[in-house]
Amino acid sequence: MKSERIWNFSSGPTCIPLPVLKKAQADLLNYKGTGMSVLELSHRGKPFKEIWNNVREGFKKYLNIPETHKVMLIQDDASMQFAAIPMNFLAGKSVANYLITGHWSEACIEDAEVYCKVNKVCPSPPKPICSITPLEKWHVDPKGAYLHYCSNETGDGIMLYDFPYEVLPENMPLICDMSSDLGSRQIDISKFGVIYAGVQKNFGCPGVTVLIIRKDLLDKSTVLPITPSAYNYPLIQESDNEMYNTPVTWSCYITELCLDYMNEQGIKYYENLSIERSKLLYDFIDNSQGYYISRVDPKFRSRNNVIFHLSKGEEITKKFIEESELEGFSGLQGFKTIGGIRASIYNAMPIEGVHKLIEFMKKFMNENK
Amino acid sequence: MKSERIWNFSSGPTCIPLPVLKKAQADLLNYKGTGMSVLELSHRGKPFKEIWNNVREGFKKYLNIPETHKVMLIQDDASMQFAAIPMNFLAGKSVANYLITGHWSEACIEDAEVYCKVNKVCPSPPKPICSITPLEKWHVDPKGAYLHYCSNETGDGIMLYDFPYEVLPENMPLICDMSSDLGSRQIDISKFGVIYAGVQKNFGCPGVTVLIIRKDLLDKSTVLPITPSAYNYPLIQESDNEMYNTPVTWSCYITELCLDYMNEQGIKYYENLSIERSKLLYDFIDNSQGYYISRVDPKFRSRNNVIFHLSKGEEITKKFIEESELEGFSGLQGFKTIGGIRASIYNAMPIEGVHKLIEFMKKFMNENK
Repeated sequence: MKSERIWNFSSGPTCIPLPVLKKAQADLLNYKGTGMSVLELSHRGKPFKEIWNNVREGFKKYLNIPETHKVMLIQDDASMQFAAIPMNFLAGKSVANYLITGHWSEACIEDAEVYCKVNKVCPSPPKPICSITPLEKWHVDPKGAYLHYCSNETGDGIMLYDFPYEVLPENMPLICDMSSDLGSRQIDISKFGVIYAGVQKNFGCPGVTVLIIRKDLLDKSTVLPITPSAYNYPLIQESDNEMYNTPVTWSCYITELCLDYMNEQGIKYYENLSIERSKLLYDFIDNSQGYYISRVDPKFRSRNNVIFHLSKGEEITKKFIEESELEGFSGLQGFKTIGGIRASIYNAMPIEGVHKLIEFMKKFMNENK
Repeated sequence: MKSERIWNFSSGPTCIPLPVLKKAQADLLNYKGTGMSVLELSHRGKPFKEIWNNVREGFKKYLNIPETHKVMLIQDDASMQFAAIPMNFLAGKSVANYLITGHWSEACIEDAEVYCKVNKVCPSPPKPICSITPLEKWHVDPKGAYLHYCSNETGDGIMLYDFPYEVLPENMPLICDMSSDLGSRQIDISKFGVIYAGVQKNFGCPGVTVLIIRKDLLDKSTVLPITPSAYNYPLIQESDNEMYNTPVTWSCYITELCLDYMNEQGIKYYENLSIERSKLLYDFIDNSQGYYISRVDPKFRSRNNVIFHLSKGEEITKKFIEESELEGFSGLQGFKTIGGIRASIYNAMPIEGVHKLIEFMKKFMNENK
């Protein structure tokens, strides 16, 4: 039993800023003098509509979203987008381009293939090295309705900092799963057709997927007829306040609080923090004389999911995880197909958490030479 | 600004037992000594897996679910089921039967018609009287894969206490949307193929739909190929702990607390309470000498959504709603297509709330003769 807060390195759900949790706790029984808990607010009533609108405005401010794009809030952890993206954005075409960079960009193809012919932009590089195939081997089908990729692979620890826009045929929308990096670095939204992200990494707790959609891509005449109403975006856009059904009200509220909190500093602050935290950790790994190993191509090392292996093998890795939990860390177990250790470091992780983790790694290395 | 709790008659989300809210508040920063908030728990970690399993066991106990049926927890407010039911349960057939009793059983047909031929079991009775067409006018297509109905129409205030099982051809599964009455009365689960309900009425806050499925109906060979993985129930059944993606962890937790709380008394207690509360209100309406009018056929009056109109018309109805809010009531505005007043009375509403509402109705009637 721990009485103090642990350092939560889970891949999401994960840590939330303590001031956000304290505010949620303080207001839990009586939200803004309504005589109700946030949990009890009608989604059609005024207090919740304010939350709903504040979340959309908070995203616009934090991410500097231009007027060409709209913010939609959808009930989802992001995995329904694997189907909803082709359903909504094939635009009458039968092919779509998918870039594979790891587990999640590959997993989403299973759903996409049901609705269209998937052109895999490039083959996956062979494991155990995690990397991205060089550009000259990419093939983008110009007949494709869009190009889909995942900018940060939580399982593989790969991040594509900048998409090579030059590979994109003119007018082909770029669609990106940014579930695990949206909000941790500045991006030029205008380059994208659609961005989507579950909020459970950088913006709160599970229950909401935020979609940032270029407005001209919402076209009800080309939505696939088999699209369920709950994920038919042009239909949702026409609903009262763009709220088609009952949203996960509490998760919207926590996202509102997180956005308020992060908007105090702005995204540039969090980008710098993200660079600093991940650099500390990768530098320590690289200087551990092979005790800890990163198998990710340095050009594509994720700032948000730092994955490494212990060269002494599986038994000692297991010991590392067990001892880390006793020392007040959580969530360091590697991804199922990758193994090793994964330190997921999202916006709410203070730099102190990374210092503590490095201290522990140092101590463990010395005790288990 | 109200400092005390109001009486929340919203149709859902709605009131939650105060002891549940207090427990959630007390545990918000450090859940069971994990050093984390429930909001921060990994969905794959042990503390959350306990919550997940407790919810499923809690439903089994409270609803007396037989071994023939399984409980699945899905991320949804229930509206995605309008598509997911035909996707999963057409069983290779091309027709399904839908009984229309009001707004929601009609709305779900819009989605269903995309995937199958819908046989409407009977015509809707003409408004303004809300009723259910007599049995002799029903036509059930024996080729239908299932018969779908909604046991309580929140918008229309109609409840079908007992389904007339004799109309059901042998071996045709009965599928029921019980979003607004599941948990408020005893039902014989064995009579049903599938029951589904969003938890935001009787079991907590939005984010989870509970499905109670007869096990033999889960057949991956007949799931429609266009079914998104996130709503493919046989696929979800095969996932680790039947958890395909990241659930709305907080909503699962609140449902766990609500089930614990309700299991202390059991469903019979809540059924009696439901009968008592609604009888008080309908009796008062019927004895108001035409000041308040119920347009719902007494044979089908909902215990959970008591709908009535003020015979003096719209202006006075508006005044009623405004004054009710000043007097500490919330959510009494009628449904968009029905108008008037709707008092939604779910499990967490104490009998005192109904007494207070009747007091207010009496006072309003005397002051606005």
